[in-house]
Formats: sequence, structure tokens, C-alpha cells
Amino acid sequence: MSSSLHHIRIVLVEPAGALNVGSIARVMKNMGLTQLAIVNPQCEVLGEEATRMAVHAIDLLAAARIVPDLPTALAGCTRVIATTARDRAIPTQLETPRQALPWLVESAEPTALIFGREDSGLTNAELNYATRYIRIPVGSEYSSLNLAQAVGVCAYELQMCVTNPNDNLLTNLTPTSTPTDIAPVEVVEGYYQQLESLLLDIGYLLPHTAANRMEKIRRLYNRSQLSPNEVALLRGILRQVSWAVDTAKSIDPQ
Amino acid sequence: MSSSLHHIRIVLVEPAGALNVGSIARVMKNMGLTQLAIVNPQCEVLGEEATRMAVHAIDLLAAARIVPDLPTALAGCTRVIATTARDRAIPTQLETPRQALPWLVESAEPTALIFGREDSGLTNAELNYATRYIRIPVGSEYSSLNLAQAVGVCAYELQMCVTNPNDNLLTNLTPTSTPTDIAPVEVVEGYYQQLESLLLDIGYLLPHTAANRMEKIRRLYNRSQLSPNEVALLRGILRQVSWAVDTAKSIDPQ
Repeated sequence: MSSSLHHIRIVLVEPAGALNVGSIARVMKNMGLTQLAIVNPQCEVLGEEATRMAVHAIDLLAAARIVPDLPTALAGCTRVIATTARDRAIPTQLETPRQALPWLVESAEPTALIFGREDSGLTNAELNYATRYIRIPVGSEYSSLNLAQAVGVCAYELQMCVTNPNDNLLTNLTPTSTPTDIAPVEVVEGYYQQLESLLLDIGYLLPHTAANRMEKIRRLYNRSQLSPNEVALLRGILRQVSWAVDTAKSIDPQ
Repeated sequence: MSSSLHHIRIVLVEPAGALNVGSIARVMKNMGLTQLAIVNPQCEVLGEEATRMAVHAIDLLAAARIVPDLPTALAGCTRVIATTARDRAIPTQLETPRQALPWLVESAEPTALIFGREDSGLTNAELNYATRYIRIPVGSEYSSLNLAQAVGVCAYELQMCVTNPNDNLLTNLTPTSTPTDIAPVEVVEGYYQQLESLLLDIGYLLPHTAANRMEKIRRLYNRSQLSPNEVALLRGILRQVSWAVDTAKSIDPQ
């Protein structure tokens, strides 16, 4: 278990509430988190409302990385968790923050925790960048948590991993089958792109069904948390398949 | 352990921020808490700012008991916990929310959790009404939590007691991200056989190196614990690749 949370990136996708963004900066700094990335913000990140709520965390807000899309925000990350309020769209069972977050803390490499839009959360495509999924437990009567509260609860659980690891016995039980050497998101993404393009080429995927099928394929590979060597091996196979198909194709039957 | 949180009273002492009071009502309702008591509020409890933050919890805000002093707010309570950021003034050891809050949930009688003023917390006299004391763990750099975030963290821990009481126990160690529907060994084996035969066919595998490479490939797929549907999907891809290669091959170049 790492003794700091500096390697954990909090990623906000298109937040629209400046008060929320400011509150998030404050609670992050309260809980020892330092890395904030904001994908295409829909509000003023350093305006009056955000800085008023950030109080003594304006430095963290000013240092936030503003990026155009989610893959850019996740570059270099080996473990990615997404938060969601829905369970329909998710391939595997949803976990509580307490179950899933120690996995980010115990990593020695950059990791990320993604939060979606206030009104609509994350799209399916965005959810697919993650390998584990968190749903914060809520009561049955009113389930829609404020974005800053959701970040606050997760930030608290992360801080608990560092300061009170014995309060949560699960944190001492690292699943031993988890590979230690996990390829960063953009490396795995390179494989998916190459695979999709080959599958379109040989007619397995059709342009209008590709997204849905690729989602299923991504899920099964994401679950296994590929190492860089494994990605290289899988891409080697794809190259050989492409070569076999193209060589055959280039033989002119006439 | 009680199955509801209706017997737990959240008590705010002289809150000055209307945004905070509204946010607190929202997160309380999110987490299944229904009883709010406010001692001598220093802001408008049902004004525009508070109701804007409360969103769908305005009913809870409207039902809040406004009382002149702390003893009145605590009337009828058998177990009382106070939150504090200081440790000097406290007669006994400070606990984390996770350590102390189950004590409130397991009671069958009215209990209370007290939060002090945004700027100065609770006075010594006020602290003395409690029998246990919570300090939310924070990082060293910026320890002053927003009041609504502090309530949010405690409300989350209370909800966890109800919905996920086993999250802290060693008995709950099944990795929850594992799919429930796992293909039998022989079904996955069918996929490996088909894959090996294709890879030999296109020259990616050579007979004398096949075993070693296939072992690496098996490992990465085994880790993801394929479902029967996923095996069918992967085998569908292999069939299409074989077809693309064979179709091309069958065109006689001569």
C-alpha cells in the first residue's frame, strides 16, 4: 500500500457546475490528492464560484490539467476505475468505493478515478476505458448524489487507505493474481484500433455494428489487464493475420 | 444492526452557510437519513441558496427541527457522537467515522451525530454532551473540511452500515468484479485449439515454438475468465479470419 495519493488522478468529464469543481479541489486537497484533470469543462474552472468553494485549494485548481478528451486525461495510467450510478451499462458487478479503491492506492504507477457529468454521467464509450466500476451506495428514495459529494466520499476512502488501513481489512488482501505490470491505457487502445480496423477489413465488423461488438471485445480484454508484452504479442498476431490476408488478396486472379 | 437510519438525528450547531445546509439535506436524503435538527441557524434554512442545493430534498429541509440550543436538539437520544477537527479539547480518544458510527446504527432508540460551526466547530460545553468523538481523517496539508463534505462522509458510512455491513469483514473476500457466468474449461479449450491451428496455418506459430507462445496466450485469456458468449464471439472472429485467408488462397494464381 502506497503511503501517498500523488499517483492517483481524479478525472472529471465535462463538469458543468463551477461550485462543484471548486468544492472538489478543496476536498481533494483535504484528503491528500493532488492530481486533477478536467475533460472539456462546461464551466469556468478558475472563475469566482469555483475559487470561492476551493478556499485554500486554489493552487490545486490552477494546476488542473484541462484536456480535450478522456483518452488524453488517462494517458500513462495503468489502473482505471469509473464511477457510475447506473448498473445496466456495466459489464461486471459494481463495487463499493471501499472494495475497489485500495487497488488504486497500492499501485506504484499512475492510476485514475473517473467521474461523469452531473446530469448524464459517463457514456458507454467512456465507461469502457475503465476496468473496474464503483457505485456509491445510496438509499432508495433519492439516489442522485451531488458530484462534489461523490468525489468527497471516494477521496475519503482513499485517505482512509493511507491513514487507517487497518480499519478496512479488505485493504490488506491484495488479490495475488493481479499482474503487476499493466500496459497504460493508450497502449491497449492501440491494440483495439488495430483489431477494429482488421475486423472491418475482413468483414467481421460492419461499420454500423462495430461500436457494439468492439465494446464486448474491449470488456473481455480489459478484464485481463494486459501487460505491455501481451499487447505486443496480440498486435504481432494481428500483423501476421493482416499479412496473410493481404498477401492472398494481392494475387491477382485474372 | 438496524436496517434503517430513521432513528439517527443529524444535529447542526449554528451553521452559517446556506449552501452547506442545502447540500447537507440532499446528501442526507441520498443516504437514507431523515432527521435533521438545526441549533440556532445563522443563515436562511429555506432561502434560495439552501433550496437550490437541496434539489429533491427540500422536504427534508422543510421538516428540519429548528431549536434554540443543543440540549433541546438532543432530547430523547441515548447515544450521542460529536465530530471535531481538534483533539486537544477531547477527553477520550478520537475515532474514525468507520469505527464509531456503527454504534449509532445498531441502537433501537433515537441517537444523534453533532456537527459544529463552519469556522469554530463545537465549544467544550457542547462537546461534553457526547460520549464518543469522531475526527474524519485528512491529509496534513489542508485539514479544514467543508461542513457539507463532513456530513456527506459520515452519512456515507452510516449508509454503508445498512447496505454493505460485510465490507469490513474477512468473510467477504470473493472478488466482486469476477463475472458470474464463466465458460467451462472444455469450451475455452475449443477456442485455444482453433486459435493455435489458425496461427500455425498463417505462419505466426511454428511447430517447434507453438507450445511456448500458446502458453502466454492462454494465460492472458484465462485471467479474464471468459463467459460462454465471449468464447463464441472470439471463435466467430477466428472463423471469419480463416475464411478471409482461405478465400484469398483458393484463388489459384496460375
